[in-house]
Amino acid sequence: MGTHGIVLFGHGARDPRWAEPFERLAARLRAAAPAAPVSLAFLELMTPSLDTAVAAQVAAGCTRITVVPVFFGQGGHVRRDLPQLVDACRAAHPGVEIRCATAVGEDDGVLDAIARYCLDQANDTA
Amino acid sequence: MGTHGIVLFGHGARDPRWAEPFERLAARLRAAAPAAPVSLAFLELMTPSLDTAVAAQVAAGCTRITVVPVFFGQGGHVRRDLPQLVDACRAAHPGVEIRCATAVGEDDGVLDAIARYCLDQANDTA
Repeated sequence: MGTHGIVLFGHGARDPRWAEPFERLAARLRAAAPAAPVSLAFLELMTPSLDTAVAAQVAAGCTRITVVPVFFGQGGHVRRDLPQLVDACRAAHPGVEIRCATAVGEDDGVLDAIARYCLDQANDTA
Repeated sequence: MGTHGIVLFGHGARDPRWAEPFERLAARLRAAAPAAPVSLAFLELMTPSLDTAVAAQVAAGCTRITVVPVFFGQGGHVRRDLPQLVDACRAAHPGVEIRCATAVGEDDGVLDAIARYCLDQANDTA
């Protein structure tokens, strides 16, 4: 029934150009799943924060939100900071199902793609 | 003639589990290119540093080394810190060709794989 949103959660950085791949990733997802609102959210140094992004998706009618940590590894930010932020979002929006995925860098398909890129770069004799 | 090494350069984190995808990535590369030494190196919080990893590859006979930043975006760490570190490595090993790739997150194939993972997670109704 309700709309199902996706929030891409990244670390954030001082240099605004750092966010460019996140914007490109969001554009890909919007093209692949036009019905699903896709938002970015950042732990620090960039906005919006996770609670702001989630509140905006709830205001837009999302009843289910999947948060995907765009991190390589499951370090402290993903294991400790993110669950607290997600719990706060759940408390603020008790009628909304908010789920949290494993960090993208833990996925075999993502690692395969990174490995291919590394080999291409190493073999590039230009 | 000389051996061609690959150094995967990551940020580093306090939680040792953060490095697990980097170890898995290195294992994939070693399987795909058994002749190429593959090392990890970190900007901070983890070891070895880039200069230590490069020196070890040079000592092992590498005459060409490709450094791949395992970062999503080209922020300050990749645009400012890494070139300085690479320049120092070049100065320390003038006979070795040391090249630096663009951050893995800028690659279309990597972004495609991350997008697929995000959609899988969002569509997972389990």
